[in-house]
Amino acid sequence: MRESHLDAVARIDESRLWQRHVEMAAIGAIPGNGVDRPALSATDIEARKVLIGWARERGFGIAMDPIGNLFIRRAGTDAQAPPVMTGSHMDSQPRGGRFDGMYGVLAGLEALEAIDEAKLSTRRPIELVVWTNEEGGRFQPCTMGSAVFTGARKLEEFLDVRDNEGIRLGDALATTLAATPDVDAHPFNTPAAAYIEAHIEQGPLLENSAKVIGVVTGIQGLRWFNIEVFGKTDHAGTTPLAMRKDAVRDAINIINALRELTRDPADVTRFTVGRMLVTPNSPNSVASHVLFSVDIRHTDREVIDRLGKLVEPTARAALEQCTMSITSTLHDDPCQFDRDVVAAVEQAAEALSIPSMRITSGASHDANYMARVCPGGMIFVPCTGGVSHNEAEDAKPGDLAAGARVLTAALLNLADRP
Amino acid sequence: MRESHLDAVARIDESRLWQRHVEMAAIGAIPGNGVDRPALSATDIEARKVLIGWARERGFGIAMDPIGNLFIRRAGTDAQAPPVMTGSHMDSQPRGGRFDGMYGVLAGLEALEAIDEAKLSTRRPIELVVWTNEEGGRFQPCTMGSAVFTGARKLEEFLDVRDNEGIRLGDALATTLAATPDVDAHPFNTPAAAYIEAHIEQGPLLENSAKVIGVVTGIQGLRWFNIEVFGKTDHAGTTPLAMRKDAVRDAINIINALRELTRDPADVTRFTVGRMLVTPNSPNSVASHVLFSVDIRHTDREVIDRLGKLVEPTARAALEQCTMSITSTLHDDPCQFDRDVVAAVEQAAEALSIPSMRITSGASHDANYMARVCPGGMIFVPCTGGVSHNEAEDAKPGDLAAGARVLTAALLNLADRP
Repeated sequence: MRESHLDAVARIDESRLWQRHVEMAAIGAIPGNGVDRPALSATDIEARKVLIGWARERGFGIAMDPIGNLFIRRAGTDAQAPPVMTGSHMDSQPRGGRFDGMYGVLAGLEALEAIDEAKLSTRRPIELVVWTNEEGGRFQPCTMGSAVFTGARKLEEFLDVRDNEGIRLGDALATTLAATPDVDAHPFNTPAAAYIEAHIEQGPLLENSAKVIGVVTGIQGLRWFNIEVFGKTDHAGTTPLAMRKDAVRDAINIINALRELTRDPADVTRFTVGRMLVTPNSPNSVASHVLFSVDIRHTDREVIDRLGKLVEPTARAALEQCTMSITSTLHDDPCQFDRDVVAAVEQAAEALSIPSMRITSGASHDANYMARVCPGGMIFVPCTGGVSHNEAEDAKPGDLAAGARVLTAALLNLADRP
Repeated sequence: MRESHLDAVARIDESRLWQRHVEMAAIGAIPGNGVDRPALSATDIEARKVLIGWARERGFGIAMDPIGNLFIRRAGTDAQAPPVMTGSHMDSQPRGGRFDGMYGVLAGLEALEAIDEAKLSTRRPIELVVWTNEEGGRFQPCTMGSAVFTGARKLEEFLDVRDNEGIRLGDALATTLAATPDVDAHPFNTPAAAYIEAHIEQGPLLENSAKVIGVVTGIQGLRWFNIEVFGKTDHAGTTPLAMRKDAVRDAINIINALRELTRDPADVTRFTVGRMLVTPNSPNSVASHVLFSVDIRHTDREVIDRLGKLVEPTARAALEQCTMSITSTLHDDPCQFDRDVVAAVEQAAEALSIPSMRITSGASHDANYMARVCPGGMIFVPCTGGVSHNEAEDAKPGDLAAGARVLTAALLNLADRP
């Protein structure tokens, strides 16, 4: 590694990086050290403002695109060269932790600041991006900002999506954009030279293997569906079961069948029903409507393809009394990261003598969409017990700083390439 | 039937009775001719004010007890004699109809007005009661007002019950009481000479048998439980299924087992899960908590006793990964109505040449609690297709008036007894 790059890496400030996590964790804090910071909410806006404040102090460029993806740029010497990008997200699960997403944002800012303090010139700009609505906890689907930025989906498809309270995404987005008016406009689908996302692992492998850096080689494939069951509300005391159209009953019939479909003795297939909305949701009214989510993942493309195709016929065959509709809300094929980016991360860890291992991501990330339009990769750092999407999510300041150092070195490596 | 009683019956005004249903249906109206009028809500308060206005025009006594049960009294000649009571409720299911509960209230008022117009003196007062929170759609359990009035439950047990939005029953009750300040205080547990409740059948038997009056002989037994499943929220993409504590998964395991427990080829047993609340309710978070309702009913005391006792062990045996708690929220034994009250209803229908049949109630009613403290009975009128707890709930003006006539005759019969 070049001397100048080592100088930048040395300027990664573990305590500043940690302190910023503490500050951000206060925005939307919930009991048990957790965070509830829904996409495009008042707390999301507050977090954006804090980040913009830090970027402004440094004189970095600040821009936002029409879905609210936020871009913070340190200029390069070649004004025409596409940037090397890093980033993640600041929205959280409803009962989420302090590091999921936020770490990639703050590690990216830390890298930009360290490079700036070392007064390095890079040929390419280095750009930090904060993706809108990665979690999909409030508005489905997840990884929405990167899907729209990369052109995989259109903004118009999502404007009428509503959260559990009935609030329209388009309205929440307009509020968010209006809350940060003093930023440049950023178009969709601008070219990038590369994209590296830093993230906590959200699994136990690094911790169990006593490694600090996960060199992520790819992301498992994923299928998301919303299934709606349409029944008829009736009196629970008077209506014989044979005469009912009980939407809860048929929703459970479907879930039982999908559980059977995805049963996997090797425990590689992931099957989750995490969201259920029952109408009218009263103990003595037979349910007229149930909406529930289906999340299926697998590392093998053939397996996820086969399962994904069987969801609808399996669900329909399980219906006894009601009708249903099914919507595919997300369809991610397993993703293989770029060989050069993976190598840049691995070599950075090696040069800095930080113990690393190659790893596949179980979670989906914005890197999945970015890797379709530019060379992509990810850096994982350990999280305590592999726990994530939970208030108890935790990580060590030293590991977070190590990840930021590897990120800085890898970004610099890529930023001077022709 | 006495001439004077026939005179009162003749003053039942079909069009006034229907018009009042129309007026009340506008309060909390929802699309499809339905009503959403939750207990102790702004629309419940509005309906109370309208009813109080009608009672006040007549000069009837108006009183309210500490749980908001509303009493409208036409005085008798013997100031010491306990009243003959009639009544029902004005709260509705979240997607309820225009007649469930409201009919018994308006038929009771119509009876009082007809008797008043006929200038009849009765030995006993005749009192109309509007029970608070019969439906249990917003605050569980149902039939709360009559349970507390009759001393079967204590008001203090319910003050901290919260609705789906987290609002405390005690706070909603205080708002309701404060909204109707100009009424007398009514104590709990005052003696009654008899209680007759008029109600739509909420089932198809009268319609199928071409009868206008159901002489209700009793109510089937009922068990309500809230079951809470406690798991752990985790990332849906990274956590192997064997390592999860998935509250949705175990909730469904329990419901599958309870469905098996209550399976009844004769289709007499009623089993309903109508309410489910999932936390954090996000597609890619394993659920940490599920609360769901269980409603089991049967006409046979032995059967409902046996099923009720097996709910908890069956649920616990079905758990795979989580822990649970179970709360019995309602326990009604099958109820047999008083022979004299049943006869008074039957004879009234016969004397008025209105086709009637004896019938058992599938739904629970406030009459169940009242029948424990005084001679009780009910009058059913047909509802179209037996549909209830549904916006499409409907009834014929002529049938509603016929029920009010039978109610008037039966109340007068009982009001002059020693």
